[in-house]
Amino acid sequence: MTEARKLRMGMVGGGPGAFIGPVHRIAAELDGKIELVAGAFSQSPERSRRSADMYRIDPARAYADYRQMIEAERKRDDGIDFIAIVTPNHLHLPVASAALDAGVPVMSDKPATATYDEALQLEAAVAKSGLPYALTHTYAGYAMVREARAICAEGKLGAIRKVAVEYLQGWLSRPIEETGQKQAQWRTDPARSGPGGAIGDIGTHAFHLLEYVSGLKVTAINATLRTVVPARKLDDDCNAFVRMSNGAAGTLACSQIAAGEMNEIRIRIYGESGSLDWRQQDPNRLVVKWLDRPEEAYHAAASYLGRDALAVARTPSGHPEGYFEAFAVLYREFADALEAWKQGSANPLPPTLPGIAAGVRGMRFIERAIASNAKEGWVDF
Amino acid sequence: MTEARKLRMGMVGGGPGAFIGPVHRIAAELDGKIELVAGAFSQSPERSRRSADMYRIDPARAYADYRQMIEAERKRDDGIDFIAIVTPNHLHLPVASAALDAGVPVMSDKPATATYDEALQLEAAVAKSGLPYALTHTYAGYAMVREARAICAEGKLGAIRKVAVEYLQGWLSRPIEETGQKQAQWRTDPARSGPGGAIGDIGTHAFHLLEYVSGLKVTAINATLRTVVPARKLDDDCNAFVRMSNGAAGTLACSQIAAGEMNEIRIRIYGESGSLDWRQQDPNRLVVKWLDRPEEAYHAAASYLGRDALAVARTPSGHPEGYFEAFAVLYREFADALEAWKQGSANPLPPTLPGIAAGVRGMRFIERAIASNAKEGWVDF
Amino acid sequence: MTEARKLRMGMVGGGPGAFIGPVHRIAAELDGKIELVAGAFSQSPERSRRSADMYRIDPARAYADYRQMIEAERKRDDGIDFIAIVTPNHLHLPVASAALDAGVPVMSDKPATATYDEALQLEAAVAKSGLPYALTHTYAGYAMVREARAICAEGKLGAIRKVAVEYLQGWLSRPIEETGQKQAQWRTDPARSGPGGAIGDIGTHAFHLLEYVSGLKVTAINATLRTVVPARKLDDDCNAFVRMSNGAAGTLACSQIAAGEMNEIRIRIYGESGSLDWRQQDPNRLVVKWLDRPEEAYHAAASYLGRDALAVARTPSGHPEGYFEAFAVLYREFADALEAWKQGSANPLPPTLPGIAAGVRGMRFIERAIASNAKEGWVDF
Amino acid sequence: MTEARKLRMGMVGGGPGAFIGPVHRIAAELDGKIELVAGAFSQSPERSRRSADMYRIDPARAYADYRQMIEAERKRDDGIDFIAIVTPNHLHLPVASAALDAGVPVMSDKPATATYDEALQLEAAVAKSGLPYALTHTYAGYAMVREARAICAEGKLGAIRKVAVEYLQGWLSRPIEETGQKQAQWRTDPARSGPGGAIGDIGTHAFHLLEYVSGLKVTAINATLRTVVPARKLDDDCNAFVRMSNGAAGTLACSQIAAGEMNEIRIRIYGESGSLDWRQQDPNRLVVKWLDRPEEAYHAAASYLGRDALAVARTPSGHPEGYFEAFAVLYREFADALEAWKQGSANPLPPTLPGIAAGVRGMRFIERAIASNAKEGWVDF
Repeated sequence: MTEARKLRMGMVGGGPGAFIGPVHRIAAELDGKIELVAGAFSQSPERSRRSADMYRIDPARAYADYRQMIEAERKRDDGIDFIAIVTPNHLHLPVASAALDAGVPVMSDKPATATYDEALQLEAAVAKSGLPYALTHTYAGYAMVREARAICAEGKLGAIRKVAVEYLQGWLSRPIEETGQKQAQWRTDPARSGPGGAIGDIGTHAFHLLEYVSGLKVTAINATLRTVVPARKLDDDCNAFVRMSNGAAGTLACSQIAAGEMNEIRIRIYGESGSLDWRQQDPNRLVVKWLDRPEEAYHAAASYLGRDALAVARTPSGHPEGYFEAFAVLYREFADALEAWKQGSANPLPPTLPGIAAGVRGMRFIERAIASNAKEGWVDF
Repeated sequence: MTEARKLRMGMVGGGPGAFIGPVHRIAAELDGKIELVAGAFSQSPERSRRSADMYRIDPARAYADYRQMIEAERKRDDGIDFIAIVTPNHLHLPVASAALDAGVPVMSDKPATATYDEALQLEAAVAKSGLPYALTHTYAGYAMVREARAICAEGKLGAIRKVAVEYLQGWLSRPIEETGQKQAQWRTDPARSGPGGAIGDIGTHAFHLLEYVSGLKVTAINATLRTVVPARKLDDDCNAFVRMSNGAAGTLACSQIAAGEMNEIRIRIYGESGSLDWRQQDPNRLVVKWLDRPEEAYHAAASYLGRDALAVARTPSGHPEGYFEAFAVLYREFADALEAWKQGSANPLPPTLPGIAAGVRGMRFIERAIASNAKEGWVDF
Repeated sequence: MTEARKLRMGMVGGGPGAFIGPVHRIAAELDGKIELVAGAFSQSPERSRRSADMYRIDPARAYADYRQMIEAERKRDDGIDFIAIVTPNHLHLPVASAALDAGVPVMSDKPATATYDEALQLEAAVAKSGLPYALTHTYAGYAMVREARAICAEGKLGAIRKVAVEYLQGWLSRPIEETGQKQAQWRTDPARSGPGGAIGDIGTHAFHLLEYVSGLKVTAINATLRTVVPARKLDDDCNAFVRMSNGAAGTLACSQIAAGEMNEIRIRIYGESGSLDWRQQDPNRLVVKWLDRPEEAYHAAASYLGRDALAVARTPSGHPEGYFEAFAVLYREFADALEAWKQGSANPLPPTLPGIAAGVRGMRFIERAIASNAKEGWVDF
Repeated sequence: MTEARKLRMGMVGGGPGAFIGPVHRIAAELDGKIELVAGAFSQSPERSRRSADMYRIDPARAYADYRQMIEAERKRDDGIDFIAIVTPNHLHLPVASAALDAGVPVMSDKPATATYDEALQLEAAVAKSGLPYALTHTYAGYAMVREARAICAEGKLGAIRKVAVEYLQGWLSRPIEETGQKQAQWRTDPARSGPGGAIGDIGTHAFHLLEYVSGLKVTAINATLRTVVPARKLDDDCNAFVRMSNGAAGTLACSQIAAGEMNEIRIRIYGESGSLDWRQQDPNRLVVKWLDRPEEAYHAAASYLGRDALAVARTPSGHPEGYFEAFAVLYREFADALEAWKQGSANPLPPTLPGIAAGVRGMRFIERAIASNAKEGWVDF
């Protein structure tokens, strides 16, 4: 590495009141390889300026339009190296397409797009561009998720027979979208969210985690979607049976009306001789249970972990890493991929980093879940 | 109560090698109101005698046939007051019927019978007899299950919206029925178990717990039953969607191939403003989570608990009570009911003690789950 | 065993309002080897009769005086085989002595006596009598305590370096002895409790657990005893440093003013290469942590456990056993010892069952802790 | 705020192989108010350059001497605003003094200095300089520690009676300082660590947490320090009794030979009517137990928390924040204080941010613990 400068990031979305914008900024910068330098934070010039102030970046690089940002930054010597998309879902495709067309790599919040059709369009655009594109399925960045993934890949549990993944929240138990809560508003609005409510917002995370950890594909689904809070326009509680590519089966659940739950993400994988159990609210611990020997708890950063889990540890065991650190792992991998790509690598994304293929799978999941619910029965993937 | 003698129990089943016979003996005697005095422990006279020795009861009261026991005991001044049925399922109906016909009250292991039709026959027989009949749905005896039930009944969570119950074991992950393991043998044999495998053995417990705690009825079910271990004759892994009588919905899962699980029974009930969460493996603790105030943990025997939970506590908080104590609560309530009945009460069973109605529900559940699985879709109850 | 009758127990203490009397009855009878048949439950004849009624035993065998019980029972063909002492501490020595003098074996609640001098007297009396005498240090009956003990004995942790044992309760946070609470009254009264308050009531349990599990002896102690609640006559909060016979060191804490704690008993033992951690409020789980491999959780009744732990399991893994079952293990071992003794065994008590030596150690502990506190420094044992 | 530029940090220490340097960099930059721009990372020019590369900063601002850095940076328009000291302890005083003399504010790793005398010197230097000086007692940055502190301050538990704090690690269970492990080497070397081993490295954290959360001062201590691993030159296992300024008492424990422990920091505070319990390995949860109502668990970022806890939350409940985020809270408060100071505030440090007074207390603690150990008894503070 002759020159060790940081990669420069431009953000689209993340203006005042946004939750996920600052999260992306922290995650992107955490490992010291990236710095936020520009942003089309809001469509209002004044609000975009205020965001620049909040982020302490040059106000001249706060734009009110992403196309304008792409245009202006490409003319600078110190212009952005990539964009991060943190808008509501309906803007994911247009923003990503514009960036890719302009030769700018993309790190996008999930889900990839608002609809499955859009995802296929985006997939084509990514392929055509030859540019790095990745997706922040945050939970894939946890060290113990990577350990779980390695355990499955190595067959330590025997053949996988049964799976159970859930993502439960309670924050939409009441119709807070009617009271002006911004996060609730766009997530319950089909025009900005797409056809999936909970299934799109958090079900896609559960789905991704399931395929990511198990190493299997979902081949069929039987989903029931409910809208529990009256007058809400999208689903807020979903249960599904799934069949996996190796013949295993199980369940996927997500809910935003599970009153009392915070952000309860849990995955359990059962094999012939043992099982694993991970919960995001206790993320540095992975429980592995065996048929005929003591239950084990693996801890992040412990010397006995596999390569993938150790690669992402920043602190010794017992110093908890959390949500930002998991998020930052994805950005770190993206930064490394970007540098490799700049140096000519044709296929720089590591298999641990979710890309457009995962994005298409996620959108297919939403589409299939909705189809299954309409049919009240199984549909194939 | 002028005379404070113990009630005399005769056991059917529970011979050498049985697991549940000694459990019933301990549970029945634990609160000092019942003593085991006789038994048709085995169809082999010699084995029945050996059991009498093990139980340290009069060998003259070890019988090889339950009809013979009923006959002989009714002639004694100190004859049995009731029978406990602890045989495999296919004998539940004939034994219970014989007892009821002879005027002997019945405490039966679950499920009530081997098939739904049998359950209806038994229901008629119980009604005709006017005798106390109860069913050992063990988990209904835990103090914190009763607290959970009271919380739901009092509407503290608001209207119930979502339920999730699971009962996971791993002990049938391998075909141990082929190696002569007695418990596995009869449970995987349709001739002795009835048409349900895991769904009958433990699914009925989960189902009962769900209706018992929520105070709601299951009105429809969509179940998938799998037989994961090759050559096994009955289901060993089941997932179901359920709809409840108030419009709530959720899931019921049971498995005996969840490798690494021991006896993981868990119930979660979500209402409009909070939820509760109970796990049998941490039975003296009930977690209650609220939408907008701190999560709570209620502990068995604590002064702030409701009447039903406090009624069954035997020790101060922090002295763990477990499986035997929960089981014994049912026997204690049965003993009290029996004494009330002897003194003329027509309807002595308390609402907290599962009776024939719960037994019929359980058998209906098995029948409906199998029908749903065959249909690959929803069936009504 | 030609005849399989139950052993007959006579209880001293345990009258109306007592907590520990019914616990002893349940524990004694739980494994089906013992039955309560007689009692000097109270010094009031009427109250003793009421207890007989409650226990559903023959009212003719309810005595108002333990000497009278011993006398009367020895004349019966079906007289008692041993006595259980469940009185306040100051009666332990006189009752035990009377029984031993009359040739009656003794199962005593802890502590052995009210003072260390009395313990030495009792030790001599036991030795002289040649009779079985055991002490209900309840926590020694837990399966996972026995596993912990075996792990230490086998040196699996390497040489023990550090220990930490604690027993924390909060129920005496307020002066409830002034409001007539019977349990609080005698425990805070030196005339009935002896010179130790918390240190005697629960500190002795912690001390016993420490020596029992570690296999080491305490050789020196530096204790601070406090009386936190004003006007209380005995200590209610104690912290101590301890030195162990192999050079290890650590802490022993007990408190009855730890507001919010229920019955928090915990022992941690650190060796050169790992450590173990057991909590009574989660009794069926033993955590073993290693320097360089994954943390383990051992579960009661699991096949991989050692002989001593498996010997006391009554249910498959995942069916929680608790306080009564632990207590009952001691009674079961006592029953077996009694039968062996009747058949001529000179030394029938198994090493797992606390006897008079443990009783003397416990009283020495109280005496040394008080001496250390007075001196404000270390004292040898 | 007219100009929203980031504050510029120069680091002293943190060269190749260091653990805590990158932690400081991440923590300092996490909230977007600070950027690392310069460093005297190592006394070797070449190693300091390599660090600049790793941190991706201008190689011209990598210095081999902190005096040189202070000198050179003051001449730049974009020179550093403050220094962060992340060296071994023996350099804390000289580096801090040099910075303060040059008018440069200081953020220092703990402990403040190598000895108590040095701490007094530093205290004088800070006072004389009038410059902001803060100390990274990391655990003070956790949201739930702040909630615990507020609960104590508001008297919600009633008067505090009993305290227990512990900090247990196992990583020095073997003499790894002999194998070249850099972290172990300097920590076990009196020339670089000062007179305290575990007591200085982690005991000071426990001590600070105790005073910080309880709001009380330690007024006397009785400590036993041991060196368990042969040939080690400093203590590696310590237990202490403490007396608090309001008459409460309790224990403080720290160990680096607690094999199997990772970074087990726990604090329990018992008041008249309840208690609180916090563990760093589950940092987003604070357990509060009451004498007569259900146990509560407070979760980070929940709406019912107090102002201080909510002020430091960055994510909604259920998205775990960890060690870096706690660390970053201190840097954020330092950045805010620095800006206030630049605008003329004379006393800009908030009470939640540990400063030189806490540093002096910590060094006094080490000195007193060693004195108590030598005396084998109580010493006053």
